[in-house]
Amino acid sequence: MNGLPLSSKLHDLDDLRLNDLVIVMVSPRNPLNIGAAARAMTNFGVHRLRLVECYAPAFREARSAVGAADVLKSAEDFGTVAEAIADCARVVGTTAVRDRDLQHPVRTLGQKSGAEIRNQMLAGRVAILFGSEKYGLSNSDISHCHWLLRIPTHKTNISMNLGQAVAVCLYEIARATPVKGVKRKGMKQPGVKAETERATVGAAEMISELLLENLRKSGYVKPGNDAMVVKKVRRLVLRLDLKALDAKILLGMVRQIAWKLKQAEK
Amino acid sequence: MNGLPLSSKLHDLDDLRLNDLVIVMVSPRNPLNIGAAARAMTNFGVHRLRLVECYAPAFREARSAVGAADVLKSAEDFGTVAEAIADCARVVGTTAVRDRDLQHPVRTLGQKSGAEIRNQMLAGRVAILFGSEKYGLSNSDISHCHWLLRIPTHKTNISMNLGQAVAVCLYEIARATPVKGVKRKGMKQPGVKAETERATVGAAEMISELLLENLRKSGYVKPGNDAMVVKKVRRLVLRLDLKALDAKILLGMVRQIAWKLKQAEK
Repeated sequence: MNGLPLSSKLHDLDDLRLNDLVIVMVSPRNPLNIGAAARAMTNFGVHRLRLVECYAPAFREARSAVGAADVLKSAEDFGTVAEAIADCARVVGTTAVRDRDLQHPVRTLGQKSGAEIRNQMLAGRVAILFGSEKYGLSNSDISHCHWLLRIPTHKTNISMNLGQAVAVCLYEIARATPVKGVKRKGMKQPGVKAETERATVGAAEMISELLLENLRKSGYVKPGNDAMVVKKVRRLVLRLDLKALDAKILLGMVRQIAWKLKQAEK
Repeated sequence: MNGLPLSSKLHDLDDLRLNDLVIVMVSPRNPLNIGAAARAMTNFGVHRLRLVECYAPAFREARSAVGAADVLKSAEDFGTVAEAIADCARVVGTTAVRDRDLQHPVRTLGQKSGAEIRNQMLAGRVAILFGSEKYGLSNSDISHCHWLLRIPTHKTNISMNLGQAVAVCLYEIARATPVKGVKRKGMKQPGVKAETERATVGAAEMISELLLENLRKSGYVKPGNDAMVVKKVRRLVLRLDLKALDAKILLGMVRQIAWKLKQAEK
């Protein structure tokens, strides 16, 4: 082994428990992929699995994945993406797409983005969304995301197997170390302080819904463009990147306006 | 996206073609895992797949993996590990085991070991060995390896799914950059020069076999310890880390001794 510098210590993740990371699988069809995702979660110290619009038999069959019984047993089933991420402060969507006209920031999976996710976990729960095997995340799913994550791949085949994509993302996130201010290299751990607590996506969604109600009543929403305005408003509110306190204040404001508009209808 | 530094350029592996990386799957049983490994290979620019003692139906069924038809079609089937790696200069075994009494150096998968593998590819083909789903690599398989690679995992479940383990390893190796002398940080690419050409494992194996023959004839091998001496000699020769030229010289020497010992028998 001439010249091969060997690390004397083997790194493991035994002390890691990523309580604030939530894996959300949207419309998974293949039980093997759900099982594989759950298994990768146990490999990398992650245990919160949420399923959206999951085909029931797929969920039941997945319960046999090696070493993943606990994760699968405690997995939660939701009817919509909004419900699955309501208690999260950040939502990251995964995509294989390279040049779809995305209205979201896209980052490549790597040391920097891994550290950023770990960093965002200091300010609240972070959800990572994985779409279905066949179609990935829909535009509507993506409208719930703060940003998108892409695994760097070769053009020959940019589409990864679902279970493998989950494994690669978790491998990168698990070994990352949260560092406040990614650009400041050489900065050590002790300086890290918790980010200001962020509003949950659930709180942001309440604001979006009341704001939408107000916009509908005010004639901003024209016939036929409702779906488009829904996404536009949701993206806007996510971009505001509200702190928890500010979300409360803003919610009070739009609620008051909603009340006034309702009065005016009488 | 306040404060989130976004890389303006998305990294891709389009120009990557890891011709000198060989993925060797030893005794894989599940066609889904062979297919998944092949798919991950196409995702990360790797295309040489070799199978050892592969259960024939598993191989045939695997041919349907998404985007991996070419890799599966050109996959080669071998009867023994020695044959599968004969043209390689380095052999790296993968293991989940943490404290088995291994006589091999073990390194954790990460940026450093990824760069080291890329570096070793400058001096010849590098094989990465993956064992069967159930048992991993045997001691005999491992005796062919220069060193071992472990994916950092959580104690809850140290055993990864085979296809996911391949994906995680290739993700790390694909994005690494070969740098001569891993410790010299800040060194840029242009300074990298090809390592001295290393002997192939096939050449080392020829030396081992002739040396063994000589040892048997010389009474070094006692009844009952033949299998042990086989592994001992193989490991010794691998540790010599022979340059291609030195391997030729040494082979000439042991061949000459073998000839002499044969003469002496007459």
